[in-house]
Amino acid sequence: MTATRIETDAFGEIHVDASKYWGAQTQRSLQNFDIGGAAERLPVPLIRAFGVLKKAAGIVNATYGLDPTIANAIQTAAQEIIDGKHDSEFPLVVFQTGSGTQSNMNANEVISNRAIELLGGEKGSKKPVHPNDHVNMSQSSNDTFPTVMHIAIVGEIVKKLIPSITELRDAFQAKSEEFSKIIKIGRTHLQDATPLTLGQEFSGYVQQLTFAIQRIESTLERMKNLAQGGTAVGTGLNTKIGFDVTIATEVSKLTGIDFKTAPNKFEALAAHDALVECSGALNTVAVSLFKIANDIRYLGSGPRCGYGELSLPENEPGSSIMPGKVNPTQCEALTMVCAQVFGNHATVTYSGASGQFELNVFKPVMAKNLLNSIRLIGDACRSFRIHCVEGIKANEERIEKLLHESLMLVTALNPHIGYDKASKVAKNAHKKGITLKESALSMGYLSEEEFDKWVRPENMLGPK
Amino acid sequence: MTATRIETDAFGEIHVDASKYWGAQTQRSLQNFDIGGAAERLPVPLIRAFGVLKKAAGIVNATYGLDPTIANAIQTAAQEIIDGKHDSEFPLVVFQTGSGTQSNMNANEVISNRAIELLGGEKGSKKPVHPNDHVNMSQSSNDTFPTVMHIAIVGEIVKKLIPSITELRDAFQAKSEEFSKIIKIGRTHLQDATPLTLGQEFSGYVQQLTFAIQRIESTLERMKNLAQGGTAVGTGLNTKIGFDVTIATEVSKLTGIDFKTAPNKFEALAAHDALVECSGALNTVAVSLFKIANDIRYLGSGPRCGYGELSLPENEPGSSIMPGKVNPTQCEALTMVCAQVFGNHATVTYSGASGQFELNVFKPVMAKNLLNSIRLIGDACRSFRIHCVEGIKANEERIEKLLHESLMLVTALNPHIGYDKASKVAKNAHKKGITLKESALSMGYLSEEEFDKWVRPENMLGPK
Amino acid sequence: MTATRIETDAFGEIHVDASKYWGAQTQRSLQNFDIGGAAERLPVPLIRAFGVLKKAAGIVNATYGLDPTIANAIQTAAQEIIDGKHDSEFPLVVFQTGSGTQSNMNANEVISNRAIELLGGEKGSKKPVHPNDHVNMSQSSNDTFPTVMHIAIVGEIVKKLIPSITELRDAFQAKSEEFSKIIKIGRTHLQDATPLTLGQEFSGYVQQLTFAIQRIESTLERMKNLAQGGTAVGTGLNTKIGFDVTIATEVSKLTGIDFKTAPNKFEALAAHDALVECSGALNTVAVSLFKIANDIRYLGSGPRCGYGELSLPENEPGSSIMPGKVNPTQCEALTMVCAQVFGNHATVTYSGASGQFELNVFKPVMAKNLLNSIRLIGDACRSFRIHCVEGIKANEERIEKLLHESLMLVTALNPHIGYDKASKVAKNAHKKGITLKESALSMGYLSEEEFDKWVRPENMLGPK
Amino acid sequence: MTATRIETDAFGEIHVDASKYWGAQTQRSLQNFDIGGAAERLPVPLIRAFGVLKKAAGIVNATYGLDPTIANAIQTAAQEIIDGKHDSEFPLVVFQTGSGTQSNMNANEVISNRAIELLGGEKGSKKPVHPNDHVNMSQSSNDTFPTVMHIAIVGEIVKKLIPSITELRDAFQAKSEEFSKIIKIGRTHLQDATPLTLGQEFSGYVQQLTFAIQRIESTLERMKNLAQGGTAVGTGLNTKIGFDVTIATEVSKLTGIDFKTAPNKFEALAAHDALVECSGALNTVAVSLFKIANDIRYLGSGPRCGYGELSLPENEPGSSIMPGKVNPTQCEALTMVCAQVFGNHATVTYSGASGQFELNVFKPVMAKNLLNSIRLIGDACRSFRIHCVEGIKANEERIEKLLHESLMLVTALNPHIGYDKASKVAKNAHKKGITLKESALSMGYLSEEEFDKWVRPENMLGPK
Repeated sequence: MTATRIETDAFGEIHVDASKYWGAQTQRSLQNFDIGGAAERLPVPLIRAFGVLKKAAGIVNATYGLDPTIANAIQTAAQEIIDGKHDSEFPLVVFQTGSGTQSNMNANEVISNRAIELLGGEKGSKKPVHPNDHVNMSQSSNDTFPTVMHIAIVGEIVKKLIPSITELRDAFQAKSEEFSKIIKIGRTHLQDATPLTLGQEFSGYVQQLTFAIQRIESTLERMKNLAQGGTAVGTGLNTKIGFDVTIATEVSKLTGIDFKTAPNKFEALAAHDALVECSGALNTVAVSLFKIANDIRYLGSGPRCGYGELSLPENEPGSSIMPGKVNPTQCEALTMVCAQVFGNHATVTYSGASGQFELNVFKPVMAKNLLNSIRLIGDACRSFRIHCVEGIKANEERIEKLLHESLMLVTALNPHIGYDKASKVAKNAHKKGITLKESALSMGYLSEEEFDKWVRPENMLGPK
Repeated sequence: MTATRIETDAFGEIHVDASKYWGAQTQRSLQNFDIGGAAERLPVPLIRAFGVLKKAAGIVNATYGLDPTIANAIQTAAQEIIDGKHDSEFPLVVFQTGSGTQSNMNANEVISNRAIELLGGEKGSKKPVHPNDHVNMSQSSNDTFPTVMHIAIVGEIVKKLIPSITELRDAFQAKSEEFSKIIKIGRTHLQDATPLTLGQEFSGYVQQLTFAIQRIESTLERMKNLAQGGTAVGTGLNTKIGFDVTIATEVSKLTGIDFKTAPNKFEALAAHDALVECSGALNTVAVSLFKIANDIRYLGSGPRCGYGELSLPENEPGSSIMPGKVNPTQCEALTMVCAQVFGNHATVTYSGASGQFELNVFKPVMAKNLLNSIRLIGDACRSFRIHCVEGIKANEERIEKLLHESLMLVTALNPHIGYDKASKVAKNAHKKGITLKESALSMGYLSEEEFDKWVRPENMLGPK
Repeated sequence: MTATRIETDAFGEIHVDASKYWGAQTQRSLQNFDIGGAAERLPVPLIRAFGVLKKAAGIVNATYGLDPTIANAIQTAAQEIIDGKHDSEFPLVVFQTGSGTQSNMNANEVISNRAIELLGGEKGSKKPVHPNDHVNMSQSSNDTFPTVMHIAIVGEIVKKLIPSITELRDAFQAKSEEFSKIIKIGRTHLQDATPLTLGQEFSGYVQQLTFAIQRIESTLERMKNLAQGGTAVGTGLNTKIGFDVTIATEVSKLTGIDFKTAPNKFEALAAHDALVECSGALNTVAVSLFKIANDIRYLGSGPRCGYGELSLPENEPGSSIMPGKVNPTQCEALTMVCAQVFGNHATVTYSGASGQFELNVFKPVMAKNLLNSIRLIGDACRSFRIHCVEGIKANEERIEKLLHESLMLVTALNPHIGYDKASKVAKNAHKKGITLKESALSMGYLSEEEFDKWVRPENMLGPK
Repeated sequence: MTATRIETDAFGEIHVDASKYWGAQTQRSLQNFDIGGAAERLPVPLIRAFGVLKKAAGIVNATYGLDPTIANAIQTAAQEIIDGKHDSEFPLVVFQTGSGTQSNMNANEVISNRAIELLGGEKGSKKPVHPNDHVNMSQSSNDTFPTVMHIAIVGEIVKKLIPSITELRDAFQAKSEEFSKIIKIGRTHLQDATPLTLGQEFSGYVQQLTFAIQRIESTLERMKNLAQGGTAVGTGLNTKIGFDVTIATEVSKLTGIDFKTAPNKFEALAAHDALVECSGALNTVAVSLFKIANDIRYLGSGPRCGYGELSLPENEPGSSIMPGKVNPTQCEALTMVCAQVFGNHATVTYSGASGQFELNVFKPVMAKNLLNSIRLIGDACRSFRIHCVEGIKANEERIEKLLHESLMLVTALNPHIGYDKASKVAKNAHKKGITLKESALSMGYLSEEEFDKWVRPENMLGPK
């Protein structure tokens, strides 16, 4: 039997595990929303962001007349949440009320009880620190939860996701330079095409990731708007003039990110378009990564019966039945992550479209899916870089062999003998299984000397 | 200046092109919904299905007391719609009212005016055939449009889609038999694996398409339920007892498909779950086709620098700059169709979830997307079959070469020397670039005789 | 410092926590795939299904010559997994190799070491029970993982999901009966329409859920096919003739579900169309539930300024700022679940389309998303039923008031005065803000007696 | 019998309708891709953009040595395409080769034959203007098609979409000002909440649309990069140094939009991430519009049994059975458009992820879906503005009545009597069906004078 204490709310009394800081509303949510289990708990970055917001509120409310002792205790308790000391005090799942009210109350209750404890009071007494009147002072769930979503998401993007993508981009840049002299056959429609260097091919990936960072960052402008100050419906009832601006300032100080107050609080509560936009950028990044990972695994396919142009690092045995098999497992994990991000984006999109009047009540599921996409892309980029990209080697012998077998070097003859004759040379070689040179000479369109002068892969790598 | 006549409705008078049969409500919709242009017009199968329904209503209403002259004229006019003589009389776009009321009225107006004409009356007079009181007798847009959606979709599936998939399946079956003796290397994770026959590989495609037909058909059970008889909100107000059953019977006679009346009309008007379910089956079929087309184009990649195991038919020049290039264009068209179907399914899903109270008002967009998926899959399967699958040839020399270079034949040694030793043989061969046999013998695990006896691809094609 | 032991695989030695049963390949995966953290671990139903499969394999392999002592130890260890005793021995995340090989090896390693322990051997020695040669005997990851996916998914559907939907359906059925005499205004296009009973309205939900069960069940036919026996590429190399059939029989005995061997193993490994199809059914169910939950919350909106026809149970305080507010939180949780299922379906779809040659390497992410959808729908239906549906009350006074204020009762006049005159009556009442009766009488179309006789909601609930 | 002429390509001769300008490759595509029919033809903006590009190429190639007579004839013919004189010369469907090669050749052939005609030559002779050697000079389908996609999409966005959204935004802004003094009840979770003005509510929509424009524009930066100059695989083989920059300059001059050459041509051919990003912005705009249209139709629901706060313009009869019914049809059309855009975005996403090596072969389907989203949103915003938003009227009497019946004005008491007591006042009023004031006084928490002073909606519209 766990020892319990009595907590109360507008619905009356309820028993809570005495060792926990949470209160009545958290406990009711636990009992009323038995959906999905522990795996569906609110993501940790949101919990930490509650710490940031509630600390900022403690600071700002002190300037608006909140008792300094109470304000300080709130800040101390909130800082402990920021520091990760109370993650286990947030047991609620995503699939609760769509405003996240219960998680806001969870934060209020934990901070209130912890602050009471710090001040020598009794947990559950709501004295001297009341969860609503003090911790939630000048706030509503309807503006705190959107604020916390933005703090958490922008924070994770800036501090984890963009660095991870940047490092992957840099790893590809290094490979692009390393491979800058290796000429290979190009492939369009999966068919042999004109040559390029392996470095050029990799430069495309570098560009995709450079754009990836730009497109994520271009959505942050709108993600940095904070809803705080709108309270229940966007009017800011029961808050103070200037509260919205000062709290954005405090949040910025605490996070080191330049948040600002949202220009229109009605939009900020009722719509989460900024999250949908941001998810769209992540969706695009997943598209980029899918293409890159797919290329890498096909170029590394074989070892004997595939493209075989690249050797990927061998990290683990690949088969429980086929001895010696090694698979492009990092590419597989990354493409599965991309598929997950595509789905997360669909969830965010539909949720974002479903706001009603003054409130969108799909907040927790939107936050969860976005934070999941951010975490997965960030982690997978790092894993892919360390365990795959940095160890990629070019199989130069194989690359050279394929290059010289290809028929599409014929394109170099266009300016000399015209498209139509060049076409016949290629088709003849293909049909007879002979080399391009043999075909060209047999058809009498040019001399061997001309062929050797004109058809040089190293001269086919750029405009003239 | 086009000659016009006056048509009227509850909103008053409006000018209509004198040469057209449509009336006031069609004309208003034309003017009020200038969205998307001609490409967004209601799909033709829906128009024809209106013909079927209105003819059936003419027949049934005659038994319930509708003047036989009027009833006959309605049937004649409706039959002309079935026969495709009035497609151009249906100018409305999908993006109109979400109940399809305007298209139902379009049908009522065209039939009424055409029937009036047949009976020697004056178009626009509503006499002797009134669009609402006679053509729409015992009906509401809210039950006619769902009925028409089901008639059109089931009809297209049964008469066009399933035959097209079946023919593609049969074409693959023929190829599977043709290729039954060609042993090739298998590939898992894109890496060389144990062998199988090309016929076995193709048999997987046959099975996918066999299941495709089953899963589409299993959704038809619910698609064959007709909403007719529910009228405005599902109660069947202003219709007659038994009308729902008899009209389903007449529709079945006219179409040759065993439709039946929906067991619950409230569900049939307010939800279009059956369409979402059906779209889910089409989405699955697109998944199957995507995989198949992707395999085919990779197996046909080359001609020199890809897998090169298959030769696909050469249908057209492949490049405006690279002479002699031929591309897997049928695979490309098919995979683009699949991507379209994935998107159509998302539209159907979102629309289906958005019903409100007694009505779902996303009917036209749901019907359009489903019919588009059906048409595209049907057309693309036929095109893919004729222009690609039936002409596929196996490059046996290439297939045999790859098979014998592979290292994964080592799996045959597991039962003889164990997984761990077999693993060492493969890795040693890979590292040194030697054959499996050379590696195995050099490591002393078995004799040449044993190797030749145990490692035989033709003995690796099934259980023992 | 945790005590460790040495485990080995084809890549050599590696240190493993001595208290754990897992071996070298599990440990490598843990280190190579640091993606997503604990929340992304393989779902528990998959782990238990590995127990089922490996036990069945132990039974069948004994009949094919596996040493009975080893076979028995394997069965005992596998049963412990079924019983949930080793969940914590499966630490791997979804974002690993796309074949699930590492999780198959995780199962093989745990069972092998536990069986060794049971037989008095030394963990890590692979003697007398080898993870590959004995636990994985006649199997490949490529057939075990698909088998396990099907066992887990069908099991969760049959044992948890369908009962939960059925109970919700029954709760709606009970409400439909309870409300069978309450006549209310219907709403189409959100606009007042003809009346129906609240019981009729709820009967639509009952029908949606009845169909939901049918459409899920209709996909199980294909989900009950097991891939086991296909081994690496579908040929069944290194397994025995008949192994596929007997193992399906054993799995059926262990689960009480009638699984059977897949008719084509190439399809069963390379495509997971059955999962996409099944996900499509779940997507449809989410569509149904979204519509239902949305209706319920709008009908319960208010208490003063909304539709207010229903009272939903009050389970917890609704606002941290607005005292006394109670919200339709169960509807919110359920609609968020639906939005999640839509996204999960997109992930499953794209993953399903991305198979290559003999293998689809998106297995773990497909299984995770399907199992997540199943769990969430099942849990949310139960929560919604207990905490919302069963406690719904009709606000009869409000319902009656709205019914009699409505103008759409005018529809009952159609057969008597015609659509056009009825239309004028309604428009006149609307414009002047008077009742329908006042309007009708003022226009002289009928007598008061006629009005009272013809316009009776209780006579507008069905055909005549 | 239509008169034909002989056209030729690398595959030989083929008959073409003599009245048409297109040539052999167009004709082959017509015959090989019978998929979807006329509704699936390449969108017109792409065709016009081909005119722009080919004219620009004519200008630039003249500076690089192309015969001025030929160059001028090409420019003249291309200008005719820009002017819309040859739309019917582009009969090919989207579901063709995935590079759009056949449509590039269609443009080359039409321009070549038209230029030949202008110069007095014989159509089909390829003299003096060759489709490949002259019209396609220094180009490849692989760089022209992406270029044309960007020209068309950016053009439609800048010239049609953004103006349409801006006008809708401005219409909402005007309404927001018109309604600035109308105080109404707010609704969160669909439940009565604290008040705001109708103008404030509409200001949220204005903000959503202001952001909509910003987020579309922020994606144009990457959309303005042109692939031209990359030719077949991105290297720029067979083009001239500087060609890429000068052609971007000419395209900018012709369109009045500041296009520039893409920084990396490998990315520009192989990935279309910019389109996916842009589609993500459109998806977000659809999310915004869905929410707005949904609010409007619910606020306009009734007339007697819904929210009834707004009157929407009555544009057409709403029911074929219910006389006098008027529906929010513009909202319905708009939300159907949004659902279509969600699906289009899924198609673009999947297609974008499926590039392979040096080329993405889902170009036509990507372009089609993006252009469809642009067209539909643009048209629907205009229709919604003209036929709905500009005519919205506030039902002030109804709004005022609801406001004063609401219980959530109790929130104004929080600062005076505390959250817990305020909560009891509201719950008591709700339970007893009395007014807030009656409840508050009966509980003795405050005087009538205090209540009247504190609970004033006009003082609840902002912070203090």
